[in-house]
Amino acid sequence: MTYCLGILLHEGLVLASDSRSNAGIDQVAKVNKLEVISQPGERVIVILSAGNLATTQAVVTSLREASSGQGLGLPEDDLRTAHTLFDAATTVGAALRRVVERDGQFVKAFADPSASFIVGGQIKGEAPRLFEIYSAGNFIEASARSSFIQIGETKYGKPILDRALGPDTDLAEAAKLALLSFDATIRSNLSVGPPIDMVRYRADSFEATVTTFEEQDPYFRLMRQAYAEGLSALVNSLPAPP
Amino acid sequence: MTYCLGILLHEGLVLASDSRSNAGIDQVAKVNKLEVISQPGERVIVILSAGNLATTQAVVTSLREASSGQGLGLPEDDLRTAHTLFDAATTVGAALRRVVERDGQFVKAFADPSASFIVGGQIKGEAPRLFEIYSAGNFIEASARSSFIQIGETKYGKPILDRALGPDTDLAEAAKLALLSFDATIRSNLSVGPPIDMVRYRADSFEATVTTFEEQDPYFRLMRQAYAEGLSALVNSLPAPP
Repeated sequence: MTYCLGILLHEGLVLASDSRSNAGIDQVAKVNKLEVISQPGERVIVILSAGNLATTQAVVTSLREASSGQGLGLPEDDLRTAHTLFDAATTVGAALRRVVERDGQFVKAFADPSASFIVGGQIKGEAPRLFEIYSAGNFIEASARSSFIQIGETKYGKPILDRALGPDTDLAEAAKLALLSFDATIRSNLSVGPPIDMVRYRADSFEATVTTFEEQDPYFRLMRQAYAEGLSALVNSLPAPP
Repeated sequence: MTYCLGILLHEGLVLASDSRSNAGIDQVAKVNKLEVISQPGERVIVILSAGNLATTQAVVTSLREASSGQGLGLPEDDLRTAHTLFDAATTVGAALRRVVERDGQFVKAFADPSASFIVGGQIKGEAPRLFEIYSAGNFIEASARSSFIQIGETKYGKPILDRALGPDTDLAEAAKLALLSFDATIRSNLSVGPPIDMVRYRADSFEATVTTFEEQDPYFRLMRQAYAEGLSALVNSLPAPP
């Protein structure tokens, strides 16, 4: 399983993924599900992946190589030519369709070949945007009315976001809520696990740095513990039902 | 959709259900999903229902009528003859299999005929017990190591239970956690809705009273609001990620 989360804010974007991959419960590995493709000062495109690992790696590697400026891959996979993030989402969806069309018939006998993505970022000339690419290669866009997108194991981490997150939330607060959402998911589903990779993207900065929160990261541990204790105190402080 | 929750504690049991039934999003009704079958001083059996409403009503009505002492229904559905709650769970599973065998072939063209149940209670001579009856009619039992059972829309309301609930939790505290678990589920899934029916069963009392929390119930409103505000203050009090 996987949990990936994208949040669209007036201040920018928070994009985060877990790192656990499992084929059955006896084959567990750590992988990267967060990819950054950028041109300094020009564009930042972050791709989060869920689903069949061979499919997602084929899609993301094709896009990365074609966008590397080294003459690799297919021209239609080059995300540097996308005029808008809508174009970039179309490119990711098309690459997904191509990989599933090529591999799907062989994979189906063994596993589900499907995959989905979150694509968030900013291309010069427009505001930051956030998309969810479905397994069919079509996609939807987040807005202030619907300001976060989840893929993979989406439910355990949703209540905290439904309660506390809005488009006016600031970047630091949203990053904190994202980590609490991952904490809830990790506690309830063993197949979602740390480290958590996160990009906090400030609008118009055209710079993206990946922060990785390992399970033993001092901040992450402290925050999880403080939240657990605070929640327990909060529940205790509520009156019992009559 | 439905959300039902059963909690097994050293002090007794908490059993609760929502009341929303929907066939598509344009046909929504309030129904009862919590049934109490009891003999004062002798046995209390609470049945919570999820799944196809015609199936669950057929099962529960058959059991209720056969257990009413009015000579109705089938002798094998009479829960007053169950020697243990394990027997009662077997009876519920058998009734479910019979109804699905009879109706399933006709229903399948229109809807999923399957259903599942939580059966909790106490029969004199043993401690309170709690079972989950699967759609196949087989079942599992809760224990101190795995002290709650959910059916229906299980995920949104699980994190708060995973964090705060244990077999030593007292009845009042568990009832409060159950309501918070319902609150999280109701906020995230429109097809789960109040009123919430709840039984707080104290071990060896052999008495069960159903409490109903309407959406506008003063306690439920106060608790939801206090929790929302407390959670927001808690999140604000946590340090932002470095």
